[in-house]
Amino acid sequence: MARIPKKRQQATEKLLELLGPRKVKLEGNEKYMASFDSMKLSFPYEALVVARSEKDVGATLKLANEFGVPVTTRGAGTSLTGSASPIKGGWVLDLSKMNSVKILKTKSMAVVQPGAIVSDIQAAADSEGLFYPPDPSSLKYCTIGGNIACNAGGMRCAKYGVTRDFVLALEGFLPTGEKVSWGGEYKKFATGYNVRDLWIGSEGTLGVVTKAVLRLLPKPEKKWTILVAFDSDIKALEAVQKLLFAGQNPAILEFLDTNSVYCAEEVAGVKLFKGLSLKPLLLVEFDGNGSQLREDKKKAIAWATELGLAYREAKTEKETETLWSARRACSPAMFSMGDSKINEDIVVPLESQAKFARFLKQMQKKWKLNAPTFGHAADGNFHVNIMYTRSDADECRRAKGAVLDLMKKVVALGGTISGEHGIGLAKTPFMNFARNEAEMGAMRAIKKALDPKRILNPGKIFTPYEVWDKKPEVVKLPWDKKPIAKKEA
Amino acid sequence: MARIPKKRQQATEKLLELLGPRKVKLEGNEKYMASFDSMKLSFPYEALVVARSEKDVGATLKLANEFGVPVTTRGAGTSLTGSASPIKGGWVLDLSKMNSVKILKTKSMAVVQPGAIVSDIQAAADSEGLFYPPDPSSLKYCTIGGNIACNAGGMRCAKYGVTRDFVLALEGFLPTGEKVSWGGEYKKFATGYNVRDLWIGSEGTLGVVTKAVLRLLPKPEKKWTILVAFDSDIKALEAVQKLLFAGQNPAILEFLDTNSVYCAEEVAGVKLFKGLSLKPLLLVEFDGNGSQLREDKKKAIAWATELGLAYREAKTEKETETLWSARRACSPAMFSMGDSKINEDIVVPLESQAKFARFLKQMQKKWKLNAPTFGHAADGNFHVNIMYTRSDADECRRAKGAVLDLMKKVVALGGTISGEHGIGLAKTPFMNFARNEAEMGAMRAIKKALDPKRILNPGKIFTPYEVWDKKPEVVKLPWDKKPIAKKEA
Repeated sequence: MARIPKKRQQATEKLLELLGPRKVKLEGNEKYMASFDSMKLSFPYEALVVARSEKDVGATLKLANEFGVPVTTRGAGTSLTGSASPIKGGWVLDLSKMNSVKILKTKSMAVVQPGAIVSDIQAAADSEGLFYPPDPSSLKYCTIGGNIACNAGGMRCAKYGVTRDFVLALEGFLPTGEKVSWGGEYKKFATGYNVRDLWIGSEGTLGVVTKAVLRLLPKPEKKWTILVAFDSDIKALEAVQKLLFAGQNPAILEFLDTNSVYCAEEVAGVKLFKGLSLKPLLLVEFDGNGSQLREDKKKAIAWATELGLAYREAKTEKETETLWSARRACSPAMFSMGDSKINEDIVVPLESQAKFARFLKQMQKKWKLNAPTFGHAADGNFHVNIMYTRSDADECRRAKGAVLDLMKKVVALGGTISGEHGIGLAKTPFMNFARNEAEMGAMRAIKKALDPKRILNPGKIFTPYEVWDKKPEVVKLPWDKKPIAKKEA
Repeated sequence: MARIPKKRQQATEKLLELLGPRKVKLEGNEKYMASFDSMKLSFPYEALVVARSEKDVGATLKLANEFGVPVTTRGAGTSLTGSASPIKGGWVLDLSKMNSVKILKTKSMAVVQPGAIVSDIQAAADSEGLFYPPDPSSLKYCTIGGNIACNAGGMRCAKYGVTRDFVLALEGFLPTGEKVSWGGEYKKFATGYNVRDLWIGSEGTLGVVTKAVLRLLPKPEKKWTILVAFDSDIKALEAVQKLLFAGQNPAILEFLDTNSVYCAEEVAGVKLFKGLSLKPLLLVEFDGNGSQLREDKKKAIAWATELGLAYREAKTEKETETLWSARRACSPAMFSMGDSKINEDIVVPLESQAKFARFLKQMQKKWKLNAPTFGHAADGNFHVNIMYTRSDADECRRAKGAVLDLMKKVVALGGTISGEHGIGLAKTPFMNFARNEAEMGAMRAIKKALDPKRILNPGKIFTPYEVWDKKPEVVKLPWDKKPIAKKEA
């Protein structure tokens, strides 16, 4: 570790004095566990600040800004991109203890602190007959602050949109420690620049959120799920377009490519269609009230009958769970293809999906690696899971090559390099594929304008970082799923 | 007019040389008509640039940036805030001729140039079975560029949201003349800062849009309209909350207060309920498919029966038009209360609406002015129409006082000073009610970062300007409605 400048050491002493040892940790396991996120690249840093109040956050930032100490804000640390790693040392500002959730029933809003767990917000809304749709796969662990930082998505984006679409207002601090609020408990404003939406997705580099007002929806009365098998990846993706253009508006529209189905069927032993094997799937969920749902159902069954090889619909909760089993099993079963996974979250426009499916085949062949792919077909946001063995230097080299090809391709197809994970460290080498010099210049200028001392989450988004050069920690995180090994015949 | 610096004169000569007299007008009526917007405050300026292509825009900005010439971008000029007035002189960049509309049917998107008229976009979408919901009242005249600049709303915001909710991507130029694009023909991105949403609502001060990708929806199959009369303004506003919280999701939910109803009934002679007079109204439109609509209808009739004094539903197109007649007539009929109107577009949170109705009564009494109020009740975005006589100095003074009280009150009630018109010049004196110093500082820093020479739409949003000190032009604009005079008995 590089020597810490004396000024920064003094700042840490002042911080400890100001907030006390209950909130400021200079050593120990809790501090270590906050030195990395789900990407598991750990960096040394000076102090962990476990904030308990808005005041703690303001005081920390004021001091950090005065002394030029890097501050990396974090919630649960479920980020897959290294965005919550304190790569430049300094302080980690942990907001996970600021986790209150207040539902404003008559206004259909939630007022939450940044550390609130997304599934807790959903449960609180649900208990009042309301609904918070965004559902990133880590929803039982991840915090709303992190969701706002990377504009998290999830499966229900198909119908409902991303985190941004549910954030009415943000309150928090500029990197200078000044208190600001963008929006309020209302739905519309045209009162100067929209810094709210600039903060959303800025990965903790422009400000620190201490309160958010979320928009809630009436809870859909019912759900109905159908699983459809198709003859090929391309046929499945073409069916996506046909469903959407017919005006159908599914809540969830998940694609599992042939490779993902291989993982579910051959590795995890989940077989859902008798007589069919290794056929790509679309898992489609509709929600709404009874009469609407009956129409959706009728149309969806006609669509599945016309375009699919077979379908299964869920008539009970238990059957619904069965239909989901392939989707749930495929991800942990991928570890039969390698002990390490690069889970990309690229976006391709709808009309390029068939081309993209062809590219994925070539990519896997060229680099001799498996890359089972599933994801949110309605918005073209696919998770390409490049599997490799970390200890195998050649596999690492090939995985790196595959990622590079992938990133170039999605941009060439008119898409982009990240749909919901953000850039963090992992995608910094590819930013210049997706963004031209003027665009990068504008973003950097905004960063400099709002954070003149560049203290907030430095080293992220803009500076290319080579994640392959650093060994990840060997540690099990609460949300790490147990790999499913191939069942022996 | 202040003397124009020699450098700027040279720049205008170069501009004329570069783009030719067909695109650059140094005098004439067309140039005069672009010296103001719907607020009718005219300012002298050097040249009107009628851009025909992206290239024209880039070249104009490059030159302007080099020579430090102010550039005010405009579309149709329907803005009510003076945001399209060239208050600092320089060049007016007219984009109204760049008006192409391309519907991407299978992707449910529209690719449009900034000068496209909003109703033309809607018609083009409609002819392909698609739907672009935002509907500012000037939709037959206003351009999508202007809608993006102020994040325009309209009546359908109740269900569908504002312009921002339909903009997938923007392409255009930084004030430096550099080409940038924010987003693409896809629905999700997490690829660096979201400058798209920073541009939206920035009133042409941060960049110039030359292309937008809009999200379209499937066209709703049917509509159904109900008009309900209530005993008092407060009762009507309470009914709004009850309707929304019951999970009803009307496409339109317009409120007409007692004063607006007076204008419709007593001035324009539109009486819609026999035996009732001067009772506030809610005009509610539901859209969707048949079965959904039947349920909405059932619930809405039960709601109207319980809470209203009387209701009328529309069973035919003609009846629908009749129900709309009060809403349409009230606005031009307000000119019976004064020859001038200040149409504010404030926002109050739902729970403060009753308090706000009480305030409006007091305000009108205190200042001895009429302020009939109607608007978008579902999002608390009301148009308070303060009527006065321009030639009456005392009425002007009182109108000014009423606006000041109004702006302070909406902020005190937890709302904000503009919901869909933006700040422009008109609301600059009130920005510091709605925004604290740190917030204003952050916005100014962003402006400086992206427009270092401050050439784009200078004088707007940030610098207090006293609109009362300047006499508006006496000119009829295409969208000015003919005032309805009181019918003599």
